[in-house]
Amino acid sequence: MPDPPRPPKRATKPRDGVVGPVDARQIPRYAGLGTFARLPQSGEVKKADIAILGVPFDAGTTYRPGARFGPQAIRQASRLLRPYDPALDTEPWSTQQVVDSGDVGANPFSIPEALAAIERDIARLLAAGTRVVTLGGDHTITLGALRAVHHQFGPVSLVHFDAHLDTWDTYFGASVTHGSFLRRAAEEGLFLDGASTHVGIRGPLYSRQDLVQDAELGFRIVHCVELDTIGVRGAVERIRARTGNHPLYLSIDIDVLDPAHAPGTGTPEVGGLSTRELLALVEGLSGLNVVGADVVEVAPSYDHAEITSLAAATVAYKLLSLLALSRS
Amino acid sequence: MPDPPRPPKRATKPRDGVVGPVDARQIPRYAGLGTFARLPQSGEVKKADIAILGVPFDAGTTYRPGARFGPQAIRQASRLLRPYDPALDTEPWSTQQVVDSGDVGANPFSIPEALAAIERDIARLLAAGTRVVTLGGDHTITLGALRAVHHQFGPVSLVHFDAHLDTWDTYFGASVTHGSFLRRAAEEGLFLDGASTHVGIRGPLYSRQDLVQDAELGFRIVHCVELDTIGVRGAVERIRARTGNHPLYLSIDIDVLDPAHAPGTGTPEVGGLSTRELLALVEGLSGLNVVGADVVEVAPSYDHAEITSLAAATVAYKLLSLLALSRS
Amino acid sequence: MPDPPRPPKRATKPRDGVVGPVDARQIPRYAGLGTFARLPQSGEVKKADIAILGVPFDAGTTYRPGARFGPQAIRQASRLLRPYDPALDTEPWSTQQVVDSGDVGANPFSIPEALAAIERDIARLLAAGTRVVTLGGDHTITLGALRAVHHQFGPVSLVHFDAHLDTWDTYFGASVTHGSFLRRAAEEGLFLDGASTHVGIRGPLYSRQDLVQDAELGFRIVHCVELDTIGVRGAVERIRARTGNHPLYLSIDIDVLDPAHAPGTGTPEVGGLSTRELLALVEGLSGLNVVGADVVEVAPSYDHAEITSLAAATVAYKLLSLLALSRS
Amino acid sequence: MPDPPRPPKRATKPRDGVVGPVDARQIPRYAGLGTFARLPQSGEVKKADIAILGVPFDAGTTYRPGARFGPQAIRQASRLLRPYDPALDTEPWSTQQVVDSGDVGANPFSIPEALAAIERDIARLLAAGTRVVTLGGDHTITLGALRAVHHQFGPVSLVHFDAHLDTWDTYFGASVTHGSFLRRAAEEGLFLDGASTHVGIRGPLYSRQDLVQDAELGFRIVHCVELDTIGVRGAVERIRARTGNHPLYLSIDIDVLDPAHAPGTGTPEVGGLSTRELLALVEGLSGLNVVGADVVEVAPSYDHAEITSLAAATVAYKLLSLLALSRS
Amino acid sequence: MPDPPRPPKRATKPRDGVVGPVDARQIPRYAGLGTFARLPQSGEVKKADIAILGVPFDAGTTYRPGARFGPQAIRQASRLLRPYDPALDTEPWSTQQVVDSGDVGANPFSIPEALAAIERDIARLLAAGTRVVTLGGDHTITLGALRAVHHQFGPVSLVHFDAHLDTWDTYFGASVTHGSFLRRAAEEGLFLDGASTHVGIRGPLYSRQDLVQDAELGFRIVHCVELDTIGVRGAVERIRARTGNHPLYLSIDIDVLDPAHAPGTGTPEVGGLSTRELLALVEGLSGLNVVGADVVEVAPSYDHAEITSLAAATVAYKLLSLLALSRS
Amino acid sequence: MPDPPRPPKRATKPRDGVVGPVDARQIPRYAGLGTFARLPQSGEVKKADIAILGVPFDAGTTYRPGARFGPQAIRQASRLLRPYDPALDTEPWSTQQVVDSGDVGANPFSIPEALAAIERDIARLLAAGTRVVTLGGDHTITLGALRAVHHQFGPVSLVHFDAHLDTWDTYFGASVTHGSFLRRAAEEGLFLDGASTHVGIRGPLYSRQDLVQDAELGFRIVHCVELDTIGVRGAVERIRARTGNHPLYLSIDIDVLDPAHAPGTGTPEVGGLSTRELLALVEGLSGLNVVGADVVEVAPSYDHAEITSLAAATVAYKLLSLLALSRS
Repeated sequence: MPDPPRPPKRATKPRDGVVGPVDARQIPRYAGLGTFARLPQSGEVKKADIAILGVPFDAGTTYRPGARFGPQAIRQASRLLRPYDPALDTEPWSTQQVVDSGDVGANPFSIPEALAAIERDIARLLAAGTRVVTLGGDHTITLGALRAVHHQFGPVSLVHFDAHLDTWDTYFGASVTHGSFLRRAAEEGLFLDGASTHVGIRGPLYSRQDLVQDAELGFRIVHCVELDTIGVRGAVERIRARTGNHPLYLSIDIDVLDPAHAPGTGTPEVGGLSTRELLALVEGLSGLNVVGADVVEVAPSYDHAEITSLAAATVAYKLLSLLALSRS
Repeated sequence: MPDPPRPPKRATKPRDGVVGPVDARQIPRYAGLGTFARLPQSGEVKKADIAILGVPFDAGTTYRPGARFGPQAIRQASRLLRPYDPALDTEPWSTQQVVDSGDVGANPFSIPEALAAIERDIARLLAAGTRVVTLGGDHTITLGALRAVHHQFGPVSLVHFDAHLDTWDTYFGASVTHGSFLRRAAEEGLFLDGASTHVGIRGPLYSRQDLVQDAELGFRIVHCVELDTIGVRGAVERIRARTGNHPLYLSIDIDVLDPAHAPGTGTPEVGGLSTRELLALVEGLSGLNVVGADVVEVAPSYDHAEITSLAAATVAYKLLSLLALSRS
Repeated sequence: MPDPPRPPKRATKPRDGVVGPVDARQIPRYAGLGTFARLPQSGEVKKADIAILGVPFDAGTTYRPGARFGPQAIRQASRLLRPYDPALDTEPWSTQQVVDSGDVGANPFSIPEALAAIERDIARLLAAGTRVVTLGGDHTITLGALRAVHHQFGPVSLVHFDAHLDTWDTYFGASVTHGSFLRRAAEEGLFLDGASTHVGIRGPLYSRQDLVQDAELGFRIVHCVELDTIGVRGAVERIRARTGNHPLYLSIDIDVLDPAHAPGTGTPEVGGLSTRELLALVEGLSGLNVVGADVVEVAPSYDHAEITSLAAATVAYKLLSLLALSRS
Repeated sequence: MPDPPRPPKRATKPRDGVVGPVDARQIPRYAGLGTFARLPQSGEVKKADIAILGVPFDAGTTYRPGARFGPQAIRQASRLLRPYDPALDTEPWSTQQVVDSGDVGANPFSIPEALAAIERDIARLLAAGTRVVTLGGDHTITLGALRAVHHQFGPVSLVHFDAHLDTWDTYFGASVTHGSFLRRAAEEGLFLDGASTHVGIRGPLYSRQDLVQDAELGFRIVHCVELDTIGVRGAVERIRARTGNHPLYLSIDIDVLDPAHAPGTGTPEVGGLSTRELLALVEGLSGLNVVGADVVEVAPSYDHAEITSLAAATVAYKLLSLLALSRS
Repeated sequence: MPDPPRPPKRATKPRDGVVGPVDARQIPRYAGLGTFARLPQSGEVKKADIAILGVPFDAGTTYRPGARFGPQAIRQASRLLRPYDPALDTEPWSTQQVVDSGDVGANPFSIPEALAAIERDIARLLAAGTRVVTLGGDHTITLGALRAVHHQFGPVSLVHFDAHLDTWDTYFGASVTHGSFLRRAAEEGLFLDGASTHVGIRGPLYSRQDLVQDAELGFRIVHCVELDTIGVRGAVERIRARTGNHPLYLSIDIDVLDPAHAPGTGTPEVGGLSTRELLALVEGLSGLNVVGADVVEVAPSYDHAEITSLAAATVAYKLLSLLALSRS
Repeated sequence: MPDPPRPPKRATKPRDGVVGPVDARQIPRYAGLGTFARLPQSGEVKKADIAILGVPFDAGTTYRPGARFGPQAIRQASRLLRPYDPALDTEPWSTQQVVDSGDVGANPFSIPEALAAIERDIARLLAAGTRVVTLGGDHTITLGALRAVHHQFGPVSLVHFDAHLDTWDTYFGASVTHGSFLRRAAEEGLFLDGASTHVGIRGPLYSRQDLVQDAELGFRIVHCVELDTIGVRGAVERIRARTGNHPLYLSIDIDVLDPAHAPGTGTPEVGGLSTRELLALVEGLSGLNVVGADVVEVAPSYDHAEITSLAAATVAYKLLSLLALSRS
């Protein structure tokens, strides 16, 4: 008998009629068109439970640009994924129909127009009963996703993995950038009171007021360094206590990882999470009511050997597992 | 009035009903699924004049492997291509229906089985009236393509751009590798007598007999260093004189380029062509009766900034132009 | 007696009181603060003949971003430059006072605001009698520079080294991007009639009309491939014939170089110039009345071993030589 | 008095007549021919206790190839190793004669022939009383080593560090690849019952049956994520409990490390071990009866700054220490 | 209310008249001249409390050279730093005047002359009441800094973060190299008795005597592997117990980090610290009497995505925080 | 009949008893110990006509260090070389016994000691009738080689391929560096009057006097830019006219190549030779009386895909061919 890391009861079951990825025994994993995990495109199935949606956009970046190439890099790395997730004992694309809905045609020269396109495309999917895992793009895009989710589900609990608060105010006169979108979202009332958490925060800030103002916006923080004392388990407990049964939007900035694990990002911050910690934290949210999720800020021109995009692809896979388990 | 590099007469005309690439004004070129030049997949059109076909296979490699990732790298670089080729005054995907037929499921553990799959897939396309531009993969795959072409067209003239002759004999007991496939092809009678040419040959050989035996197999050589004396024009004349009106198979090993221009390849050889020379040589073959073509030996893990795959994508684009002009 | 490549008569003379770079015999070239060629900052001298001005801006980029890091990369590579230019027999920073004026604070989220800042900063320098060599940034920034030059000098002749025409029209609703700024500049009347030339154009276009419209805007083209027939000398003659004694603005997009020579750029196009050709072309413009100049589109995250930024730094050095000789 | 991490009693003693590496005080470590740790080649000593043997072979790879360049990369990185291992308080090449036996001439086009050559070369060394540390090469090669070890020692306990089980069945008709060799080895009866352990397993599987079948073949698993609860110490106890005093073959796939620590490998899997954990785990096996060992799957074209090959070289050094201590 | 990782009492206060960095809201962080954190140069303020001083020197390197490019790489990465350090609740460049004093003109061909220049420049700053954070350069340079510190403060306690002891003896006849400078410093009496500690030591040594001799020179060791048992907290306690209230010199060789976190260094050693551990260890020294500090051995040509130089810049920032807190 | 680039008469003949490289049909070229071209080590044959000798030394470098890793990188790239050189119609290691003599143990901390070791090791080989092809190492090492050659052959003609003159005077008090060694050699009388030539010179100089003083030392220059007018043929004629039948030392600094062709070097200079030009120039010296030769300044940490070291290996191969033909 095997000794898997999690109890062996089967949480989910392959469902009839679900169209899965290209068979790796017919077409090697490095071959064939690069949809996420080589899953079907939207046009190939009648109805989808979950859509992977790319948002190649980086005009909200304040330091290293390049996240516009994130979606294709994550898709490329996702070729290595396999159907069964032993940590969560589920088969995320057998028990629900997952499709790759391609990329939003986000205007690279206008943040408002890009946000409108993102909001429109995601709202359309949500209205059709399809939940969405978005692949960024810089973190600005999450505002479009949050607005669409708000239309469908009302205010949500946010769990936000990031090295940075992203609640700074305007920058060079731009009200929405990858460093300020969360302040805008809070101001727009997109979040439930007392239900949202930043995880993995670290590094220098502009001022002590950054923390004060962030708290005033309603967020609480699990600082990265706290993991050394409370552990993954303690962090999960704090997050779950705040989110409860509320609809949950999960936003993962890949720079929550240490630059050793995710060099390919725009605003690296040393002292971060390992991929092992991040996966365990995300797995710890199993069973929560996930209504939307994203992985953002993969900038492949700074990556090497695809390690950042592989981390992002694996996180996206975990998000599919969470969605499978939150729907069962 | 503009002063284009070639006479302004319009050789080809956009054809009704042809489905072209995704519109770059709706979806930026870095976005959307990565078919070649973002052209339609085979299933999206009724009939194709030309198919782009990937062969992710590198089990015939003798030095640096990695060409199995060539097709996807070339497709990624092809996002930068635009519809109008001023050098040949044609629009290669408006005047003929071009599709991306995806990748052959080539067995990575058996050269004979891989060759059979390549031959079968290409033969099927040819039988349906679709000519094929193959993206390698290591050079071994060309034998499969040549066999399929032979079924449809009989013996052909070969124009072979390469740093190496590829007419060596068995290596470690394998009769077909990327260094010996042309000897096998010649032995199988796939070529017309006196009609085939190697272009760009250079570098050390195993023995003086290599040249003797290659000549006995019926090939003639335009050595790379001869370009310094006869020029692109002279080389083109020698090639055209041998090929004449015969059906032509055009095989381009990216290592015909200098390593400065194509570092991402398996058997680099210094002293090679510049991309400017290679494009001019290929353009010089305009009007010939091209019945098949390939670009091979792109090994992306040795590339940087995509310069090798961009060279290959641009060469593939030229092949589409040649096919447009050879059919008009 | 030496045998230099150019006649030995001394065109320029070191001038009294000029402040030069840090002495490489006291502080090794890899040390010390990284102004261009380790020249003085603007505050360190009373009056400057020439200012090097960085414009770290890339929000007008349509494909690979990253040129915002161009100025600092070019400055870093400029550490290798030495005081005497034997090809033009001049000492570009001994015979005129050259300073590094730092970077324009260009708004990364608003092309119009960034252009206004560029125009304002350059206009101020020109008004003080200082000519400016601008380091990009993406090519959009040249519009700001051209506007400032127009204030001071009226319409100019443009010599534009580039793989691309940059006279396309709006893209995603943005009227000014790095692919359209020259159309805007022409529409604004910034150029003299019949005096401007594109050099190094190559690669696929969107349509045959691109060439027609470009010609209607008043440009003429030295296509890259023409260098194989008319040579550097012929190209120089055609450019000089059009520019004559008019005030000349010289804009050099580093992608005029082949990707082998300049991988670190946003829109690479194979089949380009070698650095040897580019330097010879620029040297061929010696004696013309240069009133402004720039080097743009260096995107260091795609560079390796600094070869692109070294090419750009050396081109910027040649621009200083041209300015020295055009003022003597 | 120093405070070393392990008790100071000296476990091993330099032996007379042992030929060690080139003296780093005469020939700097970056100089001289690159045998492992600059140790003597086999021809230079009469008899060897331990041989380092390279197997440059990667035809069994299912994703990124390139491990054929692993042995030379590991040797290059091994230049940094020094004679005394403080963690295990031993001098692995002073107390036993270690040589570099070069590389097996493994046929790159035939997995069976390559396996036969590996088996033959190792068997010959074992028969002469020389134990072997093999440097891969992809993991397929371990089957050849296990067969040779079986001839000499009969069935063994296996401790297998890897992200993957490697007990999948045929792939593209090939019965032995780097993902299936352990199933073949188990079927051939090369392992003792109930004595073998996988360590570091993680990531998605093809199906839940993968775990069931693996257990049926007799393996037990220390999942990577379990290290967070049982620690290195707990893992070591579980491994030692299963291995006991049996002859032990130790096989270390470098992808057991996290991609941050080992980017240069063919099938990276995030969430892995750090090098500190891996070294501690290997050190924990001190005193066991090691009869053979390998380090495999280093693919240098995906490495940077040699960090993967340095990890592999240091692991190989630890294997020499284990062999020194298992023989004393 | 926020929940920061450290108690919220404000340890330091912004001081009147202090000149800080360029305002990131006027000039984006990727723009402008690259002083450390874009702080003022020495000439721009009257008096400095702290000077950042580069020492671009690597002639004492025994393996991979390139640390001469360290200071500029660290400065480049320091653009990402922000004013408020929440972990230590201080604003390191608001409460004290920090300047960038540029680079020492260290002779690349003479270790003694380079050491003399370093000693002279630092002594001059110390005599003026300015404490110095030195950016290497290879570790040899620390001897120059220690000598200057000794002039001003007498013998000090050393806390030395490093993978290596650096107390080896002469190498190729050179008495001072990056592997032997600490032995020289101890022989010169630069350290207090019983007060100095190495932290992070690991990896193979030349002989068991290395540890004995190092202890005889008066050092004690916190081995890297001990962190797994005593934790950061235990390590901090051991260090603080030895240093007490003595004047402290803090020297951080970036190779104390694991190569995954710091690939860009000359003598990488696997099994090292994560950046999270290193930052926590340095933060743990808060309140000690720091009289000098350095970060050395960043070799950018082996770095990627600036992760090593970002780690070094962040460590230098922490040193500024320690200095702010040690002076209050 | 083949049509080779050179007349088919056979200039040299395989000689009995010569020991060649490892057979690539038994041991693939990527396998086995990395002597140059996998030729025998010195100990394996009785007498050698030619020795390859590495000099891993870079303490004379003024900008980017790292050439100490040059010899091993060139050896690694030399695995791709084959026995027959069709351009010169010779088999350089069949007609003469070539061995790899390993590396000189050059002191990294003392230029004079390193030069003495180089001189001694080469002199010993020359005295035994073995000519030497030296692999650098920075260019400083050539002075050691020239001194040894002078002992054996008296003053020689020098043909020096380089971007730089290398006749600058002292730098930081060091009389011999890679930028001044040729001045020292000239002062020591190591060259024949009027017989030496620099080839490929380009780029900015410190002053116009650099050219004057170089000429006074007796050198003449073929400037890189002159190749555009006189061609390879004209350059060869000028070199041969000066060298005549004198004993010739051939020194090739890899930076004579353009950075596109040789990024991996310490002092790159744009506008350089292509590898095709360099090989043709070297081939043009066939038949001259070569008494010594070197290839220097390969700095692998700046290389990519081994293109610089492959260029150097191929140049070294050409030097073996020249030696074969100069002895026949």
